[in-house]
Amino acid sequence: MKCKFCKGEVYIKLHHPKMYLCREHFIEYFERKVRRTIDRYKLLKEDERILVALSGGKDSAVLSYVLKKLNYPIQCLYINLGIGKYSDRCEEYAKKQCEVIDAPLHVVRIRELLGAGVGELRTSRPTCSYCGTTKRYISNKFAYDNNFDVVVTGHNLDDEASFIFGNILNWSTQYLAKQGPILPGEGKFVKRVKPLYEITEREIVAYASAVGIEYVTDKCPYSKGAITLKYKEVINQLEEMRPGTKIKFVRGFLKKRCLFEGEVERGEIKECKVCDMPSGGEVCSFCRIWGLREVVDLVKGCK
Amino acid sequence: MKCKFCKGEVYIKLHHPKMYLCREHFIEYFERKVRRTIDRYKLLKEDERILVALSGGKDSAVLSYVLKKLNYPIQCLYINLGIGKYSDRCEEYAKKQCEVIDAPLHVVRIRELLGAGVGELRTSRPTCSYCGTTKRYISNKFAYDNNFDVVVTGHNLDDEASFIFGNILNWSTQYLAKQGPILPGEGKFVKRVKPLYEITEREIVAYASAVGIEYVTDKCPYSKGAITLKYKEVINQLEEMRPGTKIKFVRGFLKKRCLFEGEVERGEIKECKVCDMPSGGEVCSFCRIWGLREVVDLVKGCK
Repeated sequence: MKCKFCKGEVYIKLHHPKMYLCREHFIEYFERKVRRTIDRYKLLKEDERILVALSGGKDSAVLSYVLKKLNYPIQCLYINLGIGKYSDRCEEYAKKQCEVIDAPLHVVRIRELLGAGVGELRTSRPTCSYCGTTKRYISNKFAYDNNFDVVVTGHNLDDEASFIFGNILNWSTQYLAKQGPILPGEGKFVKRVKPLYEITEREIVAYASAVGIEYVTDKCPYSKGAITLKYKEVINQLEEMRPGTKIKFVRGFLKKRCLFEGEVERGEIKECKVCDMPSGGEVCSFCRIWGLREVVDLVKGCK
Repeated sequence: MKCKFCKGEVYIKLHHPKMYLCREHFIEYFERKVRRTIDRYKLLKEDERILVALSGGKDSAVLSYVLKKLNYPIQCLYINLGIGKYSDRCEEYAKKQCEVIDAPLHVVRIRELLGAGVGELRTSRPTCSYCGTTKRYISNKFAYDNNFDVVVTGHNLDDEASFIFGNILNWSTQYLAKQGPILPGEGKFVKRVKPLYEITEREIVAYASAVGIEYVTDKCPYSKGAITLKYKEVINQLEEMRPGTKIKFVRGFLKKRCLFEGEVERGEIKECKVCDMPSGGEVCSFCRIWGLREVVDLVKGCK
């Protein structure tokens, strides 16, 4: 087998569309796919101030690398969640990644800012749930306070497919209406977008290796046994039997997403009396989770 | 481990709810579950004339056995689909099953009636698709012509979960609105119900073995490689990781089914000009598939 385009040595076999590509043509293909996703869903406009949320892992590393290559003037944010050595290792990698692509990096450290790490709180909420809330809050507030126009995250096709899959399996339909490659900004909510929305985990891993991006490969210790990993496994089995299942499932969802619009619990949006950010109740979930009495200064708290 | 109720020898370990049961208490549990499904969804009323669609397989065999035991005055219908030796073997078993439970059996033979078996037609539709249409048409028309009030089928929890699963995966949402344990009768459509709607395949196999029901274990030759088998496998993996996934998924669906109501393509219902049965077009799908010019007499065609 030879590369579809240059008859060079095959680097990867893609299954949907079925095609053999050499290293160079795969890199080209991948970058074109990111560009096309940005265009198709109108994710980024010219002259926007872009903040990329880095985690130290493969997705956000590849994302920031490709955005730089596509000439977007990005800045990056790493949130150190205070999960022991794991978070510190991730911080090191985020720093290296930003050096390689020559992009400014901002670092917010939960432990310094809030006095504890994720996983150390006494709360009835599962760790992964309040960790998500924390990351979304901090990346949004940091972007808002620093006049960014958009927060870019590394969610890939596998993430999105398993999110939709899980919420359908449990019929948690209230979470589905807003799920997609773009969440428009509104008031103090900064726009959030996902340029890897249509790109599989497998393609991301292959791209990282093709261009020599280094990233943390260990999983967060709290993700062990997570049901979402099982969802991903099951979706991969279906993908293997019928290549294209994943992208058709996610694109099909976007076409039918309107069905779930009436399911969103819409309460009045108030301002949190601690931090002034948008909130369903008197105090927003972030300030409640972390038991805050006064607003945290992310700009000051940032290295 | 001992039986939860009598401390007798364990026949089966159920996972949701988690419980060990001896043979006798499992039989009792199973029959109560069928009875409860009938009550919960109001599937059958007193004095209804009930037609059970037998296939020769485990589900309909167990269903007819339990309905008889619960004192429903059932009659059975076996449709010989003309799939070579497989169909004839199924017919033999359907006959045996009816002898054991002492219920009248009607037999309709596709080949005698329509001149060919399922799988022998030249059509662009997949075999399993027009086979389904054929079975639904014949069981409905037979019931209608013979004044039955309800057609009862052996669809189990695994069937239902995989049907919903597949149609969500492909976002074929138009098929979901009417999916459930009961499809009310209307005009020439006879009511259709599924008393095994909440019962797993595993429980059905265990019950058949506990009471000594014999059935055909080979699969239809056309079902080989069917994607629905993969769906069932995948759902079973999720069930194993989180017992109760299947029933929660299906019950959750029933609560949210209304979301899909607007998705049904509603055309005018006419009368087929060949057979006078309800039809979306001039000629109904059944008469079109089988190229019929005149109505088939199911009562005359019945043994």
